[in-house]
Amino acid sequence: MASNRAEVPLRKLMGPGPLNIHPRIYQALTAPVLGHLDPAHLKILDQVAEHLRKVFGTQNRVTNVTPGTGTSGMEACVTNLLEPEDKVLVCVHGYFGDRLGQMAERQGAAVTVLEGEWGKPTDPEQVEAALKNGGYKVITVVHAETSTGVLQPMDEIANLAKAHGTMIILDTVTSLGGIEVKADEWGLAAAYSCSQKCIGCPSGLSPVTFSDRAIEAVKKRKSPVRSWYLDISLLDKYWGSDRVYHHTSSSTLCCAMLEALTLIEEEGLQNRFARHLKNHQALVAGVEAMGLQMVVSPEHRLPTLNTVRIPEGVDDMKVRGYLLQNFNLEIGGGLGVFGGKVWRVGLMGYSSSAENVLFFISSLSRALALQGVKTDLTAGQDAAMSALNA
Amino acid sequence: MASNRAEVPLRKLMGPGPLNIHPRIYQALTAPVLGHLDPAHLKILDQVAEHLRKVFGTQNRVTNVTPGTGTSGMEACVTNLLEPEDKVLVCVHGYFGDRLGQMAERQGAAVTVLEGEWGKPTDPEQVEAALKNGGYKVITVVHAETSTGVLQPMDEIANLAKAHGTMIILDTVTSLGGIEVKADEWGLAAAYSCSQKCIGCPSGLSPVTFSDRAIEAVKKRKSPVRSWYLDISLLDKYWGSDRVYHHTSSSTLCCAMLEALTLIEEEGLQNRFARHLKNHQALVAGVEAMGLQMVVSPEHRLPTLNTVRIPEGVDDMKVRGYLLQNFNLEIGGGLGVFGGKVWRVGLMGYSSSAENVLFFISSLSRALALQGVKTDLTAGQDAAMSALNA
Repeated sequence: MASNRAEVPLRKLMGPGPLNIHPRIYQALTAPVLGHLDPAHLKILDQVAEHLRKVFGTQNRVTNVTPGTGTSGMEACVTNLLEPEDKVLVCVHGYFGDRLGQMAERQGAAVTVLEGEWGKPTDPEQVEAALKNGGYKVITVVHAETSTGVLQPMDEIANLAKAHGTMIILDTVTSLGGIEVKADEWGLAAAYSCSQKCIGCPSGLSPVTFSDRAIEAVKKRKSPVRSWYLDISLLDKYWGSDRVYHHTSSSTLCCAMLEALTLIEEEGLQNRFARHLKNHQALVAGVEAMGLQMVVSPEHRLPTLNTVRIPEGVDDMKVRGYLLQNFNLEIGGGLGVFGGKVWRVGLMGYSSSAENVLFFISSLSRALALQGVKTDLTAGQDAAMSALNA
Repeated sequence: MASNRAEVPLRKLMGPGPLNIHPRIYQALTAPVLGHLDPAHLKILDQVAEHLRKVFGTQNRVTNVTPGTGTSGMEACVTNLLEPEDKVLVCVHGYFGDRLGQMAERQGAAVTVLEGEWGKPTDPEQVEAALKNGGYKVITVVHAETSTGVLQPMDEIANLAKAHGTMIILDTVTSLGGIEVKADEWGLAAAYSCSQKCIGCPSGLSPVTFSDRAIEAVKKRKSPVRSWYLDISLLDKYWGSDRVYHHTSSSTLCCAMLEALTLIEEEGLQNRFARHLKNHQALVAGVEAMGLQMVVSPEHRLPTLNTVRIPEGVDDMKVRGYLLQNFNLEIGGGLGVFGGKVWRVGLMGYSSSAENVLFFISSLSRALALQGVKTDLTAGQDAAMSALNA
């Protein structure tokens, strides 16, 4: 039966996620399985919640992991806070903003899309204009747009939403654990993330946090939440002191999550943000010194997910295929209108390292050479090393 | 930081799930993480699908794992096949049948509950009467009711549904991999299970299968599926040849799933069913010889999940607490109306073993002795051993 078993190459993961994970996470995955109501497992869930509050920058009681990928957390936020007829303003400047809009439509909500340009953040002035015409119950915002590599400045939008009494749902899938998130300071109603990016786990869990105000809003709904699986009131009865069975929480994934959050605490959040920023700056310096271009202007770049413009005439699939087959290196391709036009290079969690920056630069230069594109690798390495040693 | 790390005791898991997992599953969990679009991961997904078809007894193209616990599979079946106004007949004779009804309500479907007695299966005559008055698009049935330990005979209900053109959604959470499931022979429209019971994995994935007819029905919907996360058309575009990104499939859990399915193939499905049956018979023989009573009559007992009546005057929580604290043994308590009245003893996957049967009997006799209930342990062991050697 050996032929039916998994053949798993050891990749260098530098795409939009998953990323490589710390050896201690592999150890945590082999912790003995626990029942979902075992006191030892419930203690782990409580510890996970305590850590997550720090990473989200919140005191929210209702903070934990939904049983699924980041998209389960996204759907948990949308399906609980929106019901038919509710007015929602959906800020779209990339693939994931659009996904939020699709989900909101499926709740029967009255969706207004604030369409922005891919590669740029949402313009607070447009948000202000929209909110003025208003009555929006919810605004959805993507903090770190994984499809474009844009970091959304949050202060202005947070103030606007506060002034208009509109609840913010924030996508922090590609920021949480790698870039500062200030859920309480920004007055977020709800936010979600994933386990496999800056947090540093395998995929399968979605950190979420709901403010007391959001929980109150859910209680005032006229219609039941359309998802039983992601109904926050039911999840809360399991996460909270009631401990009422809802789903079979995976002790395996939760042990990995707790270990990842412990690693984050050991490193220190600010140190971790600084590491992500420095490695990002080194990658940008190297890429630009090689003659390639970044998609996003400097002030709006995500430190965690770098979008590099594919040079004219270069075959996206051939380059990525070559990198994967020859160097076991995974980088991401473009989504939507960016398909074939950009590469997405993730520097997150354990994958955010100096060695990965240099490995990417040198691997890419080989792949481009085969496509007839000459790059100055030495200049790229010099620039990256300078940034790393700055 | 050591105090923040998980403290994980090694339990003997004999509740309703999760169960203990084979050492090879722990190894599989440490396979290097792969990207969700990596050819190596897509091959694993295809192999998982191929194995699952055998275990489900189906040729259905749309067969794979939804990214969540068994409840995600349940919701995937319900949310895709039901839309507002659709008539659905929900057979309830336990907690999980009721959960299906709650989910159907949340789709806006016209729900008719066929209420049965806890501890007994649904009566086909009642199903026939209901279907005659009919026009039901869907009937939901629980093959193995985890809350009561009842195995639902399927042949008659399958024929009735066929005759009335009603689509069957079948819950196989506590049967798949331990008891025969015949999705094609029974003409199921959709079925779902979980990873952490008879399949033998940690929780976090839900095997599902949808017939071609079910997929056609989804295409004919008037309204969009209420869940984006569990929309089978979007999942199919990722699982199928299109390979369109939908969610970040967990390579870690999928490697474990493939290894578990490989173990099932190595054992042989029929051998596996026979093992589950024999250990169940031994447990029943032992329990009854000790003077305790089973909840379910012999012809309807689940071999995978044994419900034992708690003797008069015995404190449920004290017994289960004692077993957990002193012997690291987890068994399940009752849900709903069975709370405090029954114990649920799982013999599934790697936990379905002769050693576990004897360990349970001897541990329980100690716990009962502390509550002043004398049992004849020697008689129980003799009876269990006879059944094991039969």
